Amino acid sequence: MRRFVAERAKHLVKRRNVLSSYHLSFLASHSSSFSTATDHPSMEYSSNPLTVQTINPKRLLEQLKEQPGSLPFDEILFCNIGNPQSLRQQPITFFREVLALCDHPSILDKSETQGLFSADSIERAWKILDQIPGRATGAYSHSQVIIVVLSGIDMNCNLSGLLLWGIKALRETIAAGMEVRDGFPANPNDIFLTDGASPGVHMMMQLLLRSEQDGILCPIPQYPLYSASIALHGGTLVPYYLDEATGWGLEIKDLKSQLESARSKGVTVRALVVINPGNPTGQVLAEDNQKQIVEFCKKEGLVLLADEVYQENVYAPDKEFHSFKKIARSMGYEDKDIPLVSYQSVSKGYYGECGKRGGYMEVTGFSPEIREQIYKVASVNLCSNITGQILASLIMNPPKVGDESYETYSAEKEGILSSLARRAKTLEDAFNSLEGVTCNKAEGAMYLFPRLQLSQKAIKAAEAEHIAADAFYARRLLQETGIVVVPGSGFGQVPGTWHIRCTILPQEDKIPGIVERLTAFHKKFMDEFRD
Amino acid sequence: MRRFVAERAKHLVKRRNVLSSYHLSFLASHSSSFSTATDHPSMEYSSNPLTVQTINPKRLLEQLKEQPGSLPFDEILFCNIGNPQSLRQQPITFFREVLALCDHPSILDKSETQGLFSADSIERAWKILDQIPGRATGAYSHSQVIIVVLSGIDMNCNLSGLLLWGIKALRETIAAGMEVRDGFPANPNDIFLTDGASPGVHMMMQLLLRSEQDGILCPIPQYPLYSASIALHGGTLVPYYLDEATGWGLEIKDLKSQLESARSKGVTVRALVVINPGNPTGQVLAEDNQKQIVEFCKKEGLVLLADEVYQENVYAPDKEFHSFKKIARSMGYEDKDIPLVSYQSVSKGYYGECGKRGGYMEVTGFSPEIREQIYKVASVNLCSNITGQILASLIMNPPKVGDESYETYSAEKEGILSSLARRAKTLEDAFNSLEGVTCNKAEGAMYLFPRLQLSQKAIKAAEAEHIAADAFYARRLLQETGIVVVPGSGFGQVPGTWHIRCTILPQEDKIPGIVERLTAFHKKFMDEFRD
Repeated sequence: MRRFVAERAKHLVKRRNVLSSYHLSFLASHSSSFSTATDHPSMEYSSNPLTVQTINPKRLLEQLKEQPGSLPFDEILFCNIGNPQSLRQQPITFFREVLALCDHPSILDKSETQGLFSADSIERAWKILDQIPGRATGAYSHSQVIIVVLSGIDMNCNLSGLLLWGIKALRETIAAGMEVRDGFPANPNDIFLTDGASPGVHMMMQLLLRSEQDGILCPIPQYPLYSASIALHGGTLVPYYLDEATGWGLEIKDLKSQLESARSKGVTVRALVVINPGNPTGQVLAEDNQKQIVEFCKKEGLVLLADEVYQENVYAPDKEFHSFKKIARSMGYEDKDIPLVSYQSVSKGYYGECGKRGGYMEVTGFSPEIREQIYKVASVNLCSNITGQILASLIMNPPKVGDESYETYSAEKEGILSSLARRAKTLEDAFNSLEGVTCNKAEGAMYLFPRLQLSQKAIKAAEAEHIAADAFYARRLLQETGIVVVPGSGFGQVPGTWHIRCTILPQEDKIPGIVERLTAFHKKFMDEFRD
Repeated sequence: MRRFVAERAKHLVKRRNVLSSYHLSFLASHSSSFSTATDHPSMEYSSNPLTVQTINPKRLLEQLKEQPGSLPFDEILFCNIGNPQSLRQQPITFFREVLALCDHPSILDKSETQGLFSADSIERAWKILDQIPGRATGAYSHSQVIIVVLSGIDMNCNLSGLLLWGIKALRETIAAGMEVRDGFPANPNDIFLTDGASPGVHMMMQLLLRSEQDGILCPIPQYPLYSASIALHGGTLVPYYLDEATGWGLEIKDLKSQLESARSKGVTVRALVVINPGNPTGQVLAEDNQKQIVEFCKKEGLVLLADEVYQENVYAPDKEFHSFKKIARSMGYEDKDIPLVSYQSVSKGYYGECGKRGGYMEVTGFSPEIREQIYKVASVNLCSNITGQILASLIMNPPKVGDESYETYSAEKEGILSSLARRAKTLEDAFNSLEGVTCNKAEGAMYLFPRLQLSQKAIKAAEAEHIAADAFYARRLLQETGIVVVPGSGFGQVPGTWHIRCTILPQEDKIPGIVERLTAFHKKFMDEFRD
C-alpha cells in the first residue's frame, strides 16, 4: 500500500515540480504548454533557476534565532511577499470592528459596545446581519448550487443558499460600490464572491481552455498565477512583453504580433490577461492604452480578463485607476458588446487582509446561457467563507464623509498609502543610484522590478551553479544582507535581461537599513564580478 | 469567441452533470467509475432520479412570499440540510467571543471589554494573537509552500508562512485536544488545517488514485462527497453495504467480499472510507466493530480514511465516540503500523459553524517520504482562512471547569445536544409509527434514514415520471407539506429499497408540526397508491 502511495505521490510531485518550475521559469522550453517558447533561444537558462539545495530564508531565520551573531546581519528583511500584515501593517479599524460585531452579534445591543465600537460600525453590522437570512454568519451561504439547480429536491439548498454564489445583499453592496467607483451601472448578479481572487481565475481558465490548442495572452513579466492556472487546465500561454523602456507599457502592436504568431501555429487565442496596476511591474495603465486594449479585444473576439486587485494601490500623482468596465462603457460598449471579467481581492489594497480569504469576480458580457454555465461550474465548490464575503463588501463600501469612523478610516488609509508611496520612491531612487541598475517608477501595486546589468563574469558564475543570473544575485543578496527578493526569472522577462522584484512593504523605519545594506552589497557584488 | 466558451461550458457542465447525477445516483450503471454497478440489476431506476423540471423548494419559498395562502402550507421546513445555524441554532458564545476579539484586537486592553467579554475569552484571544507572528490575523498563514520548499528564495514565504500548513500554535492546541480526547499522543505536525473537511478528502483522493484501476471502499449509503471525489480524481468506488437490520452495522465479511470482488476485476483497492458517526445513517460504531475495521485495514494493507466530523454529535446514552486513532493505539498499533487519516470540521458538532470554513485532517502512519509529498501536494493551495483555523483550535480546546465561560459554554452545548437528542427521538418514533416505514435510531450525527416500503403502484407512478420512487415520495411530501427531505437514492441504498434522509435540525418547536404534517401526508400517500 505504502509503496503505491509513494509512487502516486512521486508522480504528483513530479507534475507539481513541472508546474513549480513553470512558476519559476515559465519561459523554459521544457514546458510543452508554452507554444512560443522556441522563439527564444536563450530561455534554457531559466529551466531550473532554483533548487532545493539553494539557500532558504527560513533556515537563516532559524539560525539567527539559535546562533545570534553567526550571520553578517541580524534580521531577515522580507522584500519578497505581498502580505502587508505579516510585515506589521495594522488592519483598518472600521473593517475589523464590523467583522468582530458580525462574529459576535450578541454584544450589539449592549451599552458597553457603544464605548468600544464606532456608531457606524455598529450600524453596519446590524445592516449586514439583517441581510443574512437568520443572521447566520455561521451558515453555509450557498453550497453546491449545481445540485440545487439540477435536482429540485436538493441536498444542500438552504435558507441563505437561496442566494446564489455569495450572500446577495453583500453582492448588492459591492455592486453599489462599483457604481460609485465607475459611474456606470453594476449588477449584483454579475458578482461571484470567492476566497481571494485565485479561485475565480482558475474557474475562468477551466471554462476557456478545452485543449493545448486554446491559448491565453498573458503579460511577461507576470504574476505566475496565470501561467500556473493555464498549465493546470491544459492550455497554452501566449506571451506578450511589457515594454520596460516605456514604463512597462502595453504595446498593441506586440499584442497583435503575438496573437498572429500563435494563430499561425494553430492556437485559438481565447482571452487576454491584463494586470493593472501591474504585478511584478508596478505600472498603472494610461486611459488611452486601456481603450486600445478594449478595442483590440473587441476586434479580435477575446475575453478580457482584468486583474484589478491593486486598484486601491496607486501612488503616482498623475495616475489614476480606471476599471476596464468603466473604460469599455465610456467607449459606448454595453454589456452585450464585450466579454469582460474583473478580479478584486481583500488581500491587496491598503487593507491587505490576506488571511481573510475574500474577493470576487465581476463577469459581464457573456450570454445568459454561458452565465448559467458559469454559475453551474462555479457552484460545485462550497461557499466562500462568510468573513471574507463581509470584508469584500466593506472594502467596496467604506465609511463616508459624515460617518463617525470616516476621519479615522481616512487617516489610516491615507497613512498607509502615503507611506507606501514614500517607500516606493526611496527604494526606486536607491535602485537607480546603483551601478548598472535601472528602475521604473512604482506607479501602483506593491512592487519595484529593477533591471540589473550583470557582467559576463556574474552570468558565468551563475551558470556554473546551474541557476539563473538574477537568482544568483538574489541568493547572494540574501546570504550577505538578509534581504529577500524574488528573481525576475520567476515572472518571465525578455531573454538576456535580468531583474529582481522588490516589494515596498517593509515598515518605513526598515527602509533606510535596506537601502544601506543593498547599496553596500551591490557595490561589492559588482566589484567582485567585474569583467 | 462566445461560441467557444459556450461549447466549453457545455462540455464542462456535461462532465459536471455526470458528476452530479453520480452525486444523486452513484449506483447508476452509466457511471463507468463504479465498477461493481453491474452486480445490481435493479439500479437503472436511479439513473436520473431528479431533473430540472422537478419541483424546487426555492420556487415554493418565493411563491409563499409573493402569494401567501396559495400553497397548502405556510412555510418550507428544511429537513434536508446539515446547516444548523441557517435553522436558527445560535452559535456558542465563547467561540464567537474569541473570534471577535481576534478580529479586532485593539479592544483587548480596553476596560469596557471586560464588561462585554468573558475573562477567559479575552485571555484566549491574547494567547492566540501572541502565537501568530506579528499578531497578524490578516496575513497569509502559509502559502504555496511548494515554492518555499523547492525554490529556496521563495516568492511567498512569509513570517507566519514559516509555519507549514496552518498556524503552528493552533495545530499544537488541536493536538493537545486530541490527546485529552484519546489518551494517546498527537503530533501537531500530523495536522493539516483546511477550509472545512472536503479539501482534505480531495487531497487524499488525489494522492491515492492513479487510474480507474485504483479503488476506494466506501459505505453505501454514503454522503456523496466521497463518490464525487473519487469520480473527480478518476478512481473506482468499491461499495460496501451498511446493514440496516443491525442498525447500519459494518459487517467485515461484506467488506471482505467486496474487496475480493473488486480485486478479481483487477482493481487495486487502496483505502477504506468509514463515516462515524454515520451520514446519512446516523449510527455510532461499536468499539469492537472499530477494532475489526482496524484489523481488516492492517491485514489488507488499506489506508483507513476516517470521517469523524460528527464526533461531538452522539445522542444514544449507551454509545460513545472513539476515534480510530485511539482504537488503533489501544490495540497496540503505533504510528508506523497503520496509515490513518482522520477528518474533523467546524461545520458539524454542536457548534455547526458551516460558514466559517474551518477543519483539519490528522495524517498518521505514512512514511516521512510520503508525508513530505503530502505537504507538497497540499501546499499548492493558498492557506485556509485564519478565522476557520482559530475556530478549529477552539472546538478542540473549549472552556474547562473553572474557566469563567465554562458554565455558559457547558449549558449551551448541553442545551443543543439534548435538544437534538429529543428531536431525533421524536422524529424516529414518528417515522416508526407510519405504515410501512422502519427507522433506525439516530445514535449520532444529524440524520435519520428511514426505510419506506413503497407499493408497486407508487413505484410505477415514479417510473412514469422517470424518477426514483423515493424521489417521487420526497417530491410529493414537499408539494403537499413544505417538508424538504433528500431521497435515499442520493446516497445509494440496497437496490429495491427506498429511503429518505431527514435531518434532526429544525428548531424544536417546529418538530410537532413536522410530525403532524408528515403523518397526515404519509397516510394519504399510502392510501392513494395502495396496490
